[in-house]
Amino acid sequence: MSAGPVSSGGVPPAPHRPPPGPVPVDHGSPQPHGQVTLTRIVMPGQTNARGTLFGGVALSLMDEASAIVALRHARSSVVTAHIDSVDFKGPIFEGEAVEVTARLRMVGRTSMRISVESWGENLHTGERRFCTSAEFVFVAMGADGKPCPVPPLGLAST
Amino acid sequence: MSAGPVSSGGVPPAPHRPPPGPVPVDHGSPQPHGQVTLTRIVMPGQTNARGTLFGGVALSLMDEASAIVALRHARSSVVTAHIDSVDFKGPIFEGEAVEVTARLRMVGRTSMRISVESWGENLHTGERRFCTSAEFVFVAMGADGKPCPVPPLGLAST
Amino acid sequence: MSAGPVSSGGVPPAPHRPPPGPVPVDHGSPQPHGQVTLTRIVMPGQTNARGTLFGGVALSLMDEASAIVALRHARSSVVTAHIDSVDFKGPIFEGEAVEVTARLRMVGRTSMRISVESWGENLHTGERRFCTSAEFVFVAMGADGKPCPVPPLGLAST
Amino acid sequence: MSAGPVSSGGVPPAPHRPPPGPVPVDHGSPQPHGQVTLTRIVMPGQTNARGTLFGGVALSLMDEASAIVALRHARSSVVTAHIDSVDFKGPIFEGEAVEVTARLRMVGRTSMRISVESWGENLHTGERRFCTSAEFVFVAMGADGKPCPVPPLGLAST
Amino acid sequence: MSAGPVSSGGVPPAPHRPPPGPVPVDHGSPQPHGQVTLTRIVMPGQTNARGTLFGGVALSLMDEASAIVALRHARSSVVTAHIDSVDFKGPIFEGEAVEVTARLRMVGRTSMRISVESWGENLHTGERRFCTSAEFVFVAMGADGKPCPVPPLGLAST
Amino acid sequence: MSAGPVSSGGVPPAPHRPPPGPVPVDHGSPQPHGQVTLTRIVMPGQTNARGTLFGGVALSLMDEASAIVALRHARSSVVTAHIDSVDFKGPIFEGEAVEVTARLRMVGRTSMRISVESWGENLHTGERRFCTSAEFVFVAMGADGKPCPVPPLGLAST
Repeated sequence: MSAGPVSSGGVPPAPHRPPPGPVPVDHGSPQPHGQVTLTRIVMPGQTNARGTLFGGVALSLMDEASAIVALRHARSSVVTAHIDSVDFKGPIFEGEAVEVTARLRMVGRTSMRISVESWGENLHTGERRFCTSAEFVFVAMGADGKPCPVPPLGLAST
Repeated sequence: MSAGPVSSGGVPPAPHRPPPGPVPVDHGSPQPHGQVTLTRIVMPGQTNARGTLFGGVALSLMDEASAIVALRHARSSVVTAHIDSVDFKGPIFEGEAVEVTARLRMVGRTSMRISVESWGENLHTGERRFCTSAEFVFVAMGADGKPCPVPPLGLAST
Repeated sequence: MSAGPVSSGGVPPAPHRPPPGPVPVDHGSPQPHGQVTLTRIVMPGQTNARGTLFGGVALSLMDEASAIVALRHARSSVVTAHIDSVDFKGPIFEGEAVEVTARLRMVGRTSMRISVESWGENLHTGERRFCTSAEFVFVAMGADGKPCPVPPLGLAST
Repeated sequence: MSAGPVSSGGVPPAPHRPPPGPVPVDHGSPQPHGQVTLTRIVMPGQTNARGTLFGGVALSLMDEASAIVALRHARSSVVTAHIDSVDFKGPIFEGEAVEVTARLRMVGRTSMRISVESWGENLHTGERRFCTSAEFVFVAMGADGKPCPVPPLGLAST
Repeated sequence: MSAGPVSSGGVPPAPHRPPPGPVPVDHGSPQPHGQVTLTRIVMPGQTNARGTLFGGVALSLMDEASAIVALRHARSSVVTAHIDSVDFKGPIFEGEAVEVTARLRMVGRTSMRISVESWGENLHTGERRFCTSAEFVFVAMGADGKPCPVPPLGLAST
Repeated sequence: MSAGPVSSGGVPPAPHRPPPGPVPVDHGSPQPHGQVTLTRIVMPGQTNARGTLFGGVALSLMDEASAIVALRHARSSVVTAHIDSVDFKGPIFEGEAVEVTARLRMVGRTSMRISVESWGENLHTGERRFCTSAEFVFVAMGADGKPCPVPPLGLAST
């Protein structure tokens, strides 16, 4: 966020903390298996003259979130092979949060189908709006540059 | 992800879907109250000559995640007022996921203290490493450009 | 391109030019009506660890090229409403040219369907490969923020 | 373009298409030999406080377009060696298209002189304005890092 | 810089500092009048496949540095009107520093001529190389959008 | 800066220059030892909806300036190990200059403590405001990926 003056006396003190010890134990990602959520603030450089998020930027965020889901399932390289059913239901405005959630839906021999939704959130009011949905298909790639098998849905190591 | 050839016959068919109906009911953010997780893939343009994430880029991601927590709690504009205890424990490499989690820790009259951690994840092996921790203090700003009160922790509307 | 030493004596002299006169007469865009081609060089910051263009970046370029076609036809604001049939046939590598061509295909009352293809070109050999195809639908938006009519195909002012 | 609601019923149906067959035959670039046109929309992040395109961004686009012309002619690496006569005749505004056209003008033993023009286009009115002209000189570089010969103008393989 | 492990015990303690007092007194910019130096590290996203800085990026940095000189002298809006004599003498490599220095040379009634040089510096050896020189002409613009007078050289308020 | 029309006759002629001779003799960086100043113009893509610089962007600039100081002192790779005492005293607005100065303060066996300040400057009035201060600690890294010794303060080769 932008820089600003501190209200004198209003800053909460640092909480009592135990003396610096070992690195925190990882309890794994706070996100459920087969699902990734990516929350960003819509910046001025990502919007058009009317102050709404470019479709191309929204697609990039959806590609990135779904790629993480695919990579965690396949544990190999993946490539975007196909996208369909991209529907833009409403705009997301500058200064709003865009929350992109990708979920693994189906698994083929070497490919994965992932559904992605994005929601806009007015951070001042908490109002949320459904904005975009899409279906991405990724293919797992082996070290030889050819498609390689992925685990079935129930055996995912995510 | 990068473009690539589809393995013929391997693409899972689109799942049976009900005919297009009304917009999905929002069940709220899939993320817990007072917490935001932002997962990104480390891109080549964000790394130095040795292929590790720039500290400045890591700080930008941590600022963005903690700002969303602050905005959702305050429901007003917020500014970054103070950052301390930024510790870089280890590198995050190009092609890895960086998962940044911000959590609301303490609330003053007009300010909020938020702890942020980032973890690197090798997406091919699933190995996770603790990389960066920091404490951010945000101040809520009213329409008059002056600090304004925020709700106490228990009454957050997030 | 990157900076480099000039080969001494090898620089062609500036051609004889008439004394600076009035601004060139515009003979219109060198591109055919209803079609836009956008050629870029694939930069390192736009590729993944294997040096191939990110799907999200390719989609952004295709969105931009097709939006220009839609804007020139509608002569009003436009929004991306729907994308389908995005097929990634092969990778485009860092240092190659990516040539994106968008063509107006069909026109409805307030919407336009635009086909987009991208080709990769190895600039050292001239070899060209078909890489991505997609269909974009744009809707024209009036000053009142509602869909507004677009001219039929034959009457386009592009 | 930005996301937006679809006007119900207004979306043109996908045209009848033959069943998916082999990849399209490439008829070569739709652009003439020795010439490259690059059309972009001026984004908010590329403009100053008055909403006009930065000179530095314009120069980057002109460098990119002329480099593609040089690369296609030389079929080797190229470096920018010299630029002169850069004239900015008028501003290009946010939301307008900027159309940059580079043309091969003269060829020396190891270097190429390329003229570049950029035009701004108000996409709502179709009005076009001459904005910038410049002359770029590129030198072809061999694998040994030294200038190498380029074909004469008539023998270009573009 | 990239994140990394702290060498235990090797971190120098924070120096004794006086208790937080008033904001530092500004002694003005540490840079001489009529001159601006801008030092950056060349990032991977700013280089081509051979790891050298793009000419377009170098031009953007030179435009930015010279614009600051012009703005400080004119104390009004300025536009880039003309650039000439851009010579690229040698490459700057990824990971090196690029140091751009702009100096006010001549002043007309409404315009300013600024010389810009860029040097590359290998930060591991300290070796410095002269890389690029150019001449920029800026015109001061009044609130009415027309060229407006600038102070003569000796009376600059920088 | 943005492109604009030249006021006819107002452009100062190129100064008399000696015939092009050898490359300029380098008198070293115009900046003092152990100190780097980096001046940028705040661009629209770097600000929030209220037109003030994002904290994350400010932190990136401060990281870059202090890294150059550390690299010049250590003459080896360096990593950001720790940051503290980041105080945001006031906003920097779009179109203003942000001037970041990093100074080497203390040197340990393998680490360096660097103080960084940023000032905002209204380029139309010349008014300057103290905006941000921070302390960065960098660790020098040897070719073996382990911390390596740095010269003491007085022996710096910068």
